[in-house]
Amino acid sequence: MKVDVLSLFPEMFEGVLHSSIMKKAQANDAVSFNVINFRDYATDKHHKVDDYPYGGGAGMVLKPEPLFAAIEDVTVDTEKPPRIILLCPQGEKFTQKKSEELSSEEHLIFICGHYEGYDERIRDVLVTDELSLGDFVLTGGEIAAMAIIDSVVRLLPNVLGNVDSPMLDSFSTGLLEHPHYTRPANFKGMEVPEVLLSGNHAKINQWREEQSLIRTYERRKDLLETAPLTDFQRTLLKQLERNK
Amino acid sequence: MKVDVLSLFPEMFEGVLHSSIMKKAQANDAVSFNVINFRDYATDKHHKVDDYPYGGGAGMVLKPEPLFAAIEDVTVDTEKPPRIILLCPQGEKFTQKKSEELSSEEHLIFICGHYEGYDERIRDVLVTDELSLGDFVLTGGEIAAMAIIDSVVRLLPNVLGNVDSPMLDSFSTGLLEHPHYTRPANFKGMEVPEVLLSGNHAKINQWREEQSLIRTYERRKDLLETAPLTDFQRTLLKQLERNK
Repeated sequence: MKVDVLSLFPEMFEGVLHSSIMKKAQANDAVSFNVINFRDYATDKHHKVDDYPYGGGAGMVLKPEPLFAAIEDVTVDTEKPPRIILLCPQGEKFTQKKSEELSSEEHLIFICGHYEGYDERIRDVLVTDELSLGDFVLTGGEIAAMAIIDSVVRLLPNVLGNVDSPMLDSFSTGLLEHPHYTRPANFKGMEVPEVLLSGNHAKINQWREEQSLIRTYERRKDLLETAPLTDFQRTLLKQLERNK
Repeated sequence: MKVDVLSLFPEMFEGVLHSSIMKKAQANDAVSFNVINFRDYATDKHHKVDDYPYGGGAGMVLKPEPLFAAIEDVTVDTEKPPRIILLCPQGEKFTQKKSEELSSEEHLIFICGHYEGYDERIRDVLVTDELSLGDFVLTGGEIAAMAIIDSVVRLLPNVLGNVDSPMLDSFSTGLLEHPHYTRPANFKGMEVPEVLLSGNHAKINQWREEQSLIRTYERRKDLLETAPLTDFQRTLLKQLERNK
C-alpha cells in the first residue's frame, strides 16, 4: 500500500510513522509513506496556501490550486484511482468497518487542513471520503490521519505477524474484553481473582465470559444488540435485566 | 497545566508535541509536557513491563508495578489529585464535552498501553478515566493520547490567541459548517456561488444558514435534535422533511 499525506506540518508525522508497528510495516514493504508539504505546490512568490473567504467571515480558507497540483503529482503513476481522504469535523465517523474497507486499497491520500477551512471545490471534485474521528475538535487533520493510518496499516498482511493481543481483540467477539491479570498474585494487598489461579480452564472460561458480558452491559449496552452470545451469556443477560 | 504521558514509545510524541499549536502552548507556559518511558520504572534486570496473563490466553498483560511506581513519581509534588487517563477500547467515548471538562484540570496523566492488555488493578485503583476515541482499533494508546491532548490544550487560555477558524467552529453553532470558498472565483471551470460575490450580506447569511442546515440534514441528522435553529432554518427544515 502507498500512503501519501498532504500537510502543512509534515514534521508532526516523524515520531509516529517511524516507530513500532509503522516502522516494521515499512521495513516489511507492506506500506510506503510519503509526507508532503503542499505549500511546496503554491506557485506565488509567498507560497500562500490560504486566502480570505468569499462573502466575508472569520478565518482563512485553503485554496484549491496547491492541493489540486499536489494530488495531480502524487497520482501521476497510479493506475487504480486512489482513495483521497479529507479529515474534517463534518466527515463520516471513522469505524473499524471503514478501516477494513480502506485496508484493501492500493493507494490512500490524506489531506490534512490545519485550522483553516477547505475551499468547497476540494470537497466536490478531489476528495473521495470525508472522515472524522468523533465529535471533538482538533487543531488540524494530522492526528486524525495518524489514527486512521495506524488502524488501516495494522490490518495489512505481514504487519502484525505474531503479535497476539488482548487489547487488539476488543471488538472481535463483539463484546468488550474481560479483565486481565498478571503477576504478582498479590500486589499491595490487591489480589488476583482466585479462579484465575485455579488451573480449571472450564471455570476460567466461564468467568471470562461472565466478566466480558457484565463489562459490556455496564459500559456499552449498544454492543449487546449485535454481539453473538453463548448460552451461558444469554442466561446471565436475563439475570442482569431482571436485577436492574 | 501539567501533562505527563507514560508510554513505551516516547519518541512517537516528538513531532506532535513540538509543532504548531502545541509548541506555541509550551512557549506561552500554558502547558508543560513530560513524556516518560515507564520501562524505566521496571525494577528487574530485564526491565520487564509485561507478563503472561493468569488463567492463560494469547497476548501479554502490562504489569502493575512499573505503572504504579511511575505515577507515584510524577505525582509527588501534586497537591490537587490529577486526572489519570487510561486509553483503551473499552473506555468512554471521548467528546468535546469531556475535553472541556479536562481543560479545567491542573494535571493530566495519560497511560498508553501498546498492544498489551492492562492488569485490572491498574484500572481499579490508579485510573480516574478510561477513554476511547471511537469504535476502531489502534496498535496503542499513543495516538489517542495525542488527539485528546491536542483537543484539551487548544482550549487553554493563551493558546489559540487570535486564530479564528471556520474549521474549529464546526460544533459551536450545533450544526455543521456551511461551505467555504476563496479565490480564484473560477478554478478550472468550477465557479464560486454567485451570492458570495454579491456583497449582499443579508443574502450571504441566509445562504450560509441554508447550506449549514442542508449539510447537517444530509450528514448528521442527530445534531438537529439539539441544535438551536433560526426561524428561517426551522422553515427550511419543514420543507426538507416534506420533500424527502
